[in-house]
Amino acid sequence: MLGKVNHVAIAVPDLSAAVESYRSTLGASVTEPQALPEHGVTVVFVMLPNTKVELLEPLGEGSPISAFLEKNPAGGMHHICYEVEDIIAARDRLRQAGARILGDGNPKIGAHGKPVLFLHPKDFQGTLIELEEV
Amino acid sequence: MLGKVNHVAIAVPDLSAAVESYRSTLGASVTEPQALPEHGVTVVFVMLPNTKVELLEPLGEGSPISAFLEKNPAGGMHHICYEVEDIIAARDRLRQAGARILGDGNPKIGAHGKPVLFLHPKDFQGTLIELEEV
Repeated sequence: MLGKVNHVAIAVPDLSAAVESYRSTLGASVTEPQALPEHGVTVVFVMLPNTKVELLEPLGEGSPISAFLEKNPAGGMHHICYEVEDIIAARDRLRQAGARILGDGNPKIGAHGKPVLFLHPKDFQGTLIELEEV
Repeated sequence: MLGKVNHVAIAVPDLSAAVESYRSTLGASVTEPQALPEHGVTVVFVMLPNTKVELLEPLGEGSPISAFLEKNPAGGMHHICYEVEDIIAARDRLRQAGARILGDGNPKIGAHGKPVLFLHPKDFQGTLIELEEV
């Protein structure tokens, strides 16, 4: 069921500093910051040859990464996103196996404009998993 | 400087349960457990089309992931490993930029038999970064 790792997301308290780390210190190719107010984040992509890393900074009130950054003020790895071919089939299979889908269980349109779901970290060894239909 | 994401490592308290989650619930291809006493872990690879996820369970006394699991008893994302062409050149560049290398700064032979270094998470937004020469 799991396809490619679409991205690994890292929550950061200061996006400019993070961009500087990845671009200058680590020598990676980094995109321009993109504000996604409907998702409560500003995002930058670190482009790697086989996948990407998303650097996420909170944007506005009630950002979905604010609680994480309160617990981890320096930042840290927030979630991993896997591609799936059919997100409804994936959801139904997961539910049947007893895994919990976050929210109301209906896919939302994610930051890349594709349907996404998040799985409960308690069902997956403390790791927040995003599934994205591609 | 950064090449491919070689793997994302997830520390888990119970490797059998984690294997069951990834194999049965998520439908991924998972390798047989491999005990690496010299690294203090038992490891399983979740094989994805573009990279892999390493599931790590502590092995023996003083495992390098024990402290992490004490803080995160359910488990969680532990580090991300990027490939580099020349680990000594990478280390020297990082040091020049003021980044801290863990340990004595000399590459060790990692779990894949290749030279590796770990970078201080405080210099990289709370994310533990491994570099592996390939």
